[in-house]
Amino acid sequence: MEKRIAILPGDGVGKEVSRGAVTILQAVAELFNHKFHFTYGEIGGAAIDEFGTPLPERTLNLCKASDAVLLGAVGGPKWDLMPGHIRPEKGLLKIRKELGLYANVRPVQYYSSISGISPLRKEVVEGVDMVVVRELTGGLYFGKPSERSVQKGEASVVDTLFYQKNEIERVIRYAFELAAMRKGKVTSVDKANVLESSRMWRETAEEVAKDYPDVQLNHMLVDNAAMQLIKNPRQFDVLVTENMFGDILSDEASVLTGSLGMLPSASVSASGPYLYEPIHGSAPDIAGMNAANPIAMILSAAMMLRLSFGLEEEAEAIENAVEQVLDAGSRTRDIALFGTPFLTTEGMIEEIKAA
Amino acid sequence: MEKRIAILPGDGVGKEVSRGAVTILQAVAELFNHKFHFTYGEIGGAAIDEFGTPLPERTLNLCKASDAVLLGAVGGPKWDLMPGHIRPEKGLLKIRKELGLYANVRPVQYYSSISGISPLRKEVVEGVDMVVVRELTGGLYFGKPSERSVQKGEASVVDTLFYQKNEIERVIRYAFELAAMRKGKVTSVDKANVLESSRMWRETAEEVAKDYPDVQLNHMLVDNAAMQLIKNPRQFDVLVTENMFGDILSDEASVLTGSLGMLPSASVSASGPYLYEPIHGSAPDIAGMNAANPIAMILSAAMMLRLSFGLEEEAEAIENAVEQVLDAGSRTRDIALFGTPFLTTEGMIEEIKAA
Ligand SMILES: CC(C)[C@H](C(=O)O)[C@@H](O)C(=O)O
Ligand SMILES: CC(C)[C@H](C(=O)O)[C@@H](O)C(=O)O
Repeated sequence: MEKRIAILPGDGVGKEVSRGAVTILQAVAELFNHKFHFTYGEIGGAAIDEFGTPLPERTLNLCKASDAVLLGAVGGPKWDLMPGHIRPEKGLLKIRKELGLYANVRPVQYYSSISGISPLRKEVVEGVDMVVVRELTGGLYFGKPSERSVQKGEASVVDTLFYQKNEIERVIRYAFELAAMRKGKVTSVDKANVLESSRMWRETAEEVAKDYPDVQLNHMLVDNAAMQLIKNPRQFDVLVTENMFGDILSDEASVLTGSLGMLPSASVSASGPYLYEPIHGSAPDIAGMNAANPIAMILSAAMMLRLSFGLEEEAEAIENAVEQVLDAGSRTRDIALFGTPFLTTEGMIEEIKAA
Repeated sequence: MEKRIAILPGDGVGKEVSRGAVTILQAVAELFNHKFHFTYGEIGGAAIDEFGTPLPERTLNLCKASDAVLLGAVGGPKWDLMPGHIRPEKGLLKIRKELGLYANVRPVQYYSSISGISPLRKEVVEGVDMVVVRELTGGLYFGKPSERSVQKGEASVVDTLFYQKNEIERVIRYAFELAAMRKGKVTSVDKANVLESSRMWRETAEEVAKDYPDVQLNHMLVDNAAMQLIKNPRQFDVLVTENMFGDILSDEASVLTGSLGMLPSASVSASGPYLYEPIHGSAPDIAGMNAANPIAMILSAAMMLRLSFGLEEEAEAIENAVEQVLDAGSRTRDIALFGTPFLTTEGMIEEIKAA
């Protein structure tokens, strides 16, 4: 198989972990006789520095001409004082919109090998295996107006949560498709007792559910979901929600098992290419120190092989290598118990490649 | 001292726990020689059933004529299918708006006596002592438009996050006042990398901070806050944030210590009366079964004595009685370890009264 993969390392640890993904993908290509063409593009702060914009035309065209996109991370204190429209995060928001990446898919999985680092009790997190599906191109992130004004002599500001019903429907449908292949349970999260958009969300979920008689749907208010994720995370299979709610809840979910540095994500569109990125950010405090955990990025590459290229065996080979290395006790700093030895980013990459 | 207290039991367990607060307040009045006049009003589903509206004029007038308001809880499945404007929750939203309750104050405290029921590891939650200050009369809850429409032939929906700068300022100022009396640290939570309202929020926090040189301010993105609450909750002193973010984060914070059934809250206004309510909801599943934990409501009454009436000694007497009963091993079902004995609501009220 021959595939073109766009690599957008971005900022901070994004560069280091991207190298890890490429190394592992090259090893997979050799082992399974595939040809992966890697082309690099700038995004985020790196792109601002070089081109004055967080998402240059060139990068966007590169992505559109590729079969899949691997992204490291964007952002950092260096660009924090830039005006709104040339901040690194704008690059991320724009690429999501331009590629039509309407659903962000984040599996959260419990690894027994690193159970010791979860902030939760073992009885609570053991066996957690859920996916958060976050709407990614609408909602409070993209609605207009989003601006300041003076109203009756008072400085004021507005942001807007806007959805077309079909935007709500497609992401909920994606969640049902996923649940049908998993444990058959969708939890739709909203704030239907306050927001009109949530009432439409809830109705749409009910409508979509009719097409999936074997999938169980239940509704949960977002404040309750924030509690249930901690009290009883095992109750979830697929959780689907609005963009802003999803930003908050997926980050909350990602720390339950203690494996933030190990969690991949996929953002999918109607017609591709999909974008894959680790959940963790650019981590400016450890950037360039060869200390980041490359596993989330490497598992993102595995997700890409599975979802974009249908290479199930190859994806599993990577996932198994990661588990093997963890079972053997190898750790980067973020997942090492306090006072125990740990590997560098490079060291971890080498171990996974060797496994 | 002579005070008029409005009691709004509301729905579900609200009725049972309200009785607890009144019982304890009567005991305090006797002991310390005060006169508390209790007047009862309907709100939520109970008010819909009787008057066809979740907040009757009569109830509102009663509150305005009182020195403080004690509220149980509102809502329940019985009213879930009602149209938006006569749902129980509307009563709560309306009373907040009508009484100008701009800040909701929720202390989250670790009780060593019940450490066993926290979903988090003891090392993580031990010593947690924080307050969430949530903006309560603006933001995504109240902005207009909040409605459906058809745009370019597509069914659409919009909700609006709106603030006047002075609304942002007063709640942040409240947080600083509180922090100055506590550990001197304010964490202002926003989504400044995406929302314009959050950028105004952040700037306003910086401006207010200038008036409090002894209070340390730091900013945190809401997704990161959702993680930090679990990873390292001890880092927080006073957390202040927008209405919707505050709804999510304060509920998340309230389960960390396992003491959801024990957490009180106060909602404050510029000129009173303030409103006090437990954080837990109406819990329809156990309503009327004499099984609810009355402690959150009783501690809300203690907060009232302190904040509205300046009765510090009386407030402490209640808080000490609660601690004493817990230390002695008394539990309601929600805070009992699995398989250990527990008291009824009435039983717990009696023990606290006796202590
Ligand atoms: C960087 C930021 C704009 C982004 C978001 O809020 O979507 C990030 O937090 C994420 O979750 O991918
Ligand atoms: C009942 C509901 C409207 C309310 C809210 O969202 O404010 C509740 O969740 C709360 O936190 O007091």
